[in-house]
Amino acid sequence: MTFPMNTWYVGCTPDEIDSKPLGRRICGEAVVFYRPAADRVAALEDWCPHRGAPLSLGFVQDGKLVCGYHGLEMGCDGKTVHMPGQRVRGFPPVRSFPVVERHGFVWIWPGDPALADPALIPDLHWANNPAWAYGGGLYHIACDYRLMIDNLMDLTHETYVHSTSIGQKEIDETPCTTRTEGDTVITSRYMDGIEAPPFWKMALRANGLPDDQPVDRWQICRFTPPSHVMIEVGVALAGHGGYDAPAQAKASSTVVDFITPETEHSIWYFWGMARSFKPEDAALTAQIREGQGKIFAEDLEMLERQQKNLLQWPGRSLLKLNIDTGGVQARRVIERVIDAEQAGTGSTVAEALTTH
Amino acid sequence: MTFPMNTWYVGCTPDEIDSKPLGRRICGEAVVFYRPAADRVAALEDWCPHRGAPLSLGFVQDGKLVCGYHGLEMGCDGKTVHMPGQRVRGFPPVRSFPVVERHGFVWIWPGDPALADPALIPDLHWANNPAWAYGGGLYHIACDYRLMIDNLMDLTHETYVHSTSIGQKEIDETPCTTRTEGDTVITSRYMDGIEAPPFWKMALRANGLPDDQPVDRWQICRFTPPSHVMIEVGVALAGHGGYDAPAQAKASSTVVDFITPETEHSIWYFWGMARSFKPEDAALTAQIREGQGKIFAEDLEMLERQQKNLLQWPGRSLLKLNIDTGGVQARRVIERVIDAEQAGTGSTVAEALTTH
Amino acid sequence: MTFPMNTWYVGCTPDEIDSKPLGRRICGEAVVFYRPAADRVAALEDWCPHRGAPLSLGFVQDGKLVCGYHGLEMGCDGKTVHMPGQRVRGFPPVRSFPVVERHGFVWIWPGDPALADPALIPDLHWANNPAWAYGGGLYHIACDYRLMIDNLMDLTHETYVHSTSIGQKEIDETPCTTRTEGDTVITSRYMDGIEAPPFWKMALRANGLPDDQPVDRWQICRFTPPSHVMIEVGVALAGHGGYDAPAQAKASSTVVDFITPETEHSIWYFWGMARSFKPEDAALTAQIREGQGKIFAEDLEMLERQQKNLLQWPGRSLLKLNIDTGGVQARRVIERVIDAEQAGTGSTVAEALTTH
Repeated sequence: MTFPMNTWYVGCTPDEIDSKPLGRRICGEAVVFYRPAADRVAALEDWCPHRGAPLSLGFVQDGKLVCGYHGLEMGCDGKTVHMPGQRVRGFPPVRSFPVVERHGFVWIWPGDPALADPALIPDLHWANNPAWAYGGGLYHIACDYRLMIDNLMDLTHETYVHSTSIGQKEIDETPCTTRTEGDTVITSRYMDGIEAPPFWKMALRANGLPDDQPVDRWQICRFTPPSHVMIEVGVALAGHGGYDAPAQAKASSTVVDFITPETEHSIWYFWGMARSFKPEDAALTAQIREGQGKIFAEDLEMLERQQKNLLQWPGRSLLKLNIDTGGVQARRVIERVIDAEQAGTGSTVAEALTTH
Repeated sequence: MTFPMNTWYVGCTPDEIDSKPLGRRICGEAVVFYRPAADRVAALEDWCPHRGAPLSLGFVQDGKLVCGYHGLEMGCDGKTVHMPGQRVRGFPPVRSFPVVERHGFVWIWPGDPALADPALIPDLHWANNPAWAYGGGLYHIACDYRLMIDNLMDLTHETYVHSTSIGQKEIDETPCTTRTEGDTVITSRYMDGIEAPPFWKMALRANGLPDDQPVDRWQICRFTPPSHVMIEVGVALAGHGGYDAPAQAKASSTVVDFITPETEHSIWYFWGMARSFKPEDAALTAQIREGQGKIFAEDLEMLERQQKNLLQWPGRSLLKLNIDTGGVQARRVIERVIDAEQAGTGSTVAEALTTH
Repeated sequence: MTFPMNTWYVGCTPDEIDSKPLGRRICGEAVVFYRPAADRVAALEDWCPHRGAPLSLGFVQDGKLVCGYHGLEMGCDGKTVHMPGQRVRGFPPVRSFPVVERHGFVWIWPGDPALADPALIPDLHWANNPAWAYGGGLYHIACDYRLMIDNLMDLTHETYVHSTSIGQKEIDETPCTTRTEGDTVITSRYMDGIEAPPFWKMALRANGLPDDQPVDRWQICRFTPPSHVMIEVGVALAGHGGYDAPAQAKASSTVVDFITPETEHSIWYFWGMARSFKPEDAALTAQIREGQGKIFAEDLEMLERQQKNLLQWPGRSLLKLNIDTGGVQARRVIERVIDAEQAGTGSTVAEALTTH
């Protein structure tokens, strides 16, 4: 296993299960997500104990997930509760996965349910906060989830992959610094007195600021296990304090990245942006979401082709340059977590990190 | 091998080979079907002994199957009879499969040709009978042929998979009975005094009967090896004797299912319906065929996804409930037939069944 | 390995790399072709030593191939020459493949670079000769490259595969003769006093000649290793000397076939036609190219299906008839070349052939 199992991943977004069950592979497990009630979520193995049909082809009725083949009814605990004309007491149960709907996502714990503590779900301070707006999307990408972490922890790629939107030569030319704080890896880059690239000029204008003046730009990438990367990004009119400038002199936001392994070589990539300017402007949210969607789609071919190359040349090692330090440190954290899991200590991600 | 070989399967329908040869895999064998003459059929390995080209890309000339690559001409016995500029006497032969055109189908015997007795082809009493009409089609489905037999021997799935056409809650609620008679497994269900579902209302109207009165409905599934399932289905106005009601008080037909393995995990599914009411009404035949095609297409995703689940969890066993008895008994018959084949007794399906 | 490595193959055509780098697998090697300058060509492993991204997703700048992920810059020798903010001296190099642009093609030597002698590139006398015109194209075909050599060294298939254009019964009926001259295998067929098939009637008309008179037709196939087949084809008005007839009494050309293995079971097939009549007529060149493209596309399904058959029945041997002699002899030459390579003699194709 190349990913931690005893941890919370984003499994889906709430809207994906509003009208019917959703079948999705998570960390190699076939899962069906569904709503036993409008305000509840549940996740089971996507397997009907009767004849092995996928439960995700079924429907929800009175809180039960009904198999769409012969009508077996499952409870949220993975036990069959009813089937027309049958005594179901001896039916073998299927796995029930801990799931929690919180912060605008449905979180799933693919490992040992006994260890699933909802308090370990990351706190997204911007979620459900009227001073913030959020927009995002989902991409399926055929690559190891760690390649996407590498990608997000080394933003020099913006200069090349996103050259027409957020990339600019100064990213390349400005060294970054990386530090670890417990379970968090932080890579930062500050570029002062530069011209804003197109995406940020748009954000400045949307924020009522001029787009033709020098700005200070920052990128602060925060990795937390198993595979979450939050990136504080922004520009402030030069001379107002950069990252610490007052709100009226800057445009800033947080890039949100939840990377959920589907298999060893494919991911569900939940991306988005949370911002604290003009949060009530839904049209702006839609505009930013569309722009971000196009920009992040530029990574797909690169990541999938990189993955193919790595599979073709399994013996070749990659360089670990200073710009790669964020990804390298993130992988070390992940390895510690996996080692602790496999040592059978039963520790959760949080515990594993505090005991190392 | 998970299927009998010394038996007759439906290989194709006559119209599929009217204009040119047809390449089709049957029980793992690459076969080319063709007509050496307008009223004859033949089947060979789809392999040209010259350079291995598929003979199905060729054409028929003067009763010979001519390879479309370099003109080698095959006889129906699998021996090369001519090739421009060559002496062909020493050419290695290819397998010739016994084939018979009968009852509106082309039957093939993929096993030992010495055992192929045309008298073992099932007698379809409705075929070539002016009192009956038949319409049908062909689906390719990526599932083990036994999953389709299970499907057809347990019609409770109609309530869920075909809920808008032939399904109704009473199927679920009415127990079925299963018995075996020699090589035949029969599962029956009788539902009295119910409302007819949409498909049968249409059939009642087509038969000049009211569609708003209580009916008695029946389903009698008959499995015969290797993989044929005939289902007598119908409704009669309540109080006229149900299954035994006179023709003018009922609408009934026979669902015809010939399931031919392509590989261990895929099938050619020949489905159709034979009916004895208004047999001369070609428009009705077309209408029923279209409706049945849509209904039977509803099974495809379920069966293919079920197959994927079974392959992913090879160690998991399935439940064998009372509703599954028909499928379970059919699989026992199939196992006996395969065991007899593999014991090298050379017995045919019919013999295997009479000696057990 | 089923193909020689120490030899020149056509890797691409010049236009394929005019605007950006081209990623293409050649003899199992992932290669990126590019132009470090407008008049130069280069080829490297399609692997960035930084993080394994394919260099073919990058771009050329100041003669360097810049990785499109993080800006690493490669020199034509496969050494990293620059990367923003990095010392690159210790970066591991990637393979650089010898490449030469000549005769309208980009030639690549996938084997030992020390042995790559541009003098071994075949001399295409018609290239860059104003008395000749050339038009051609590229097909990707999922077959062993030797199946395509077989195809081109036995033109009896024209009678069947290309029956409406260049095929005619007389090809089948006229024996061919095969001889080897050092590294060359030559199969010839001469058909005198026949009616020209449609393609050649068109060529006669284009050449100002009547198309309704008997012609002498010839086909002279020349294989040279590793996998080049040049075919002299033409028709002359009967009685003027056939192949040796004066230019004003014939229409003739050379079919050009460069077959480059992609993998063991797939090829890049560069096909074309060089002609010495009306070379200045660009519309005629386009017309012939379109016609040839359609004709050669007729081989694709046959070759791919033949390949599938061979993979399904790996133990079956193919016949080696008199018409197959050209292909059989060509395979012998290829085997000698491969044996010499694997014996570690380091000899090139040319050397291997002269010492046998």
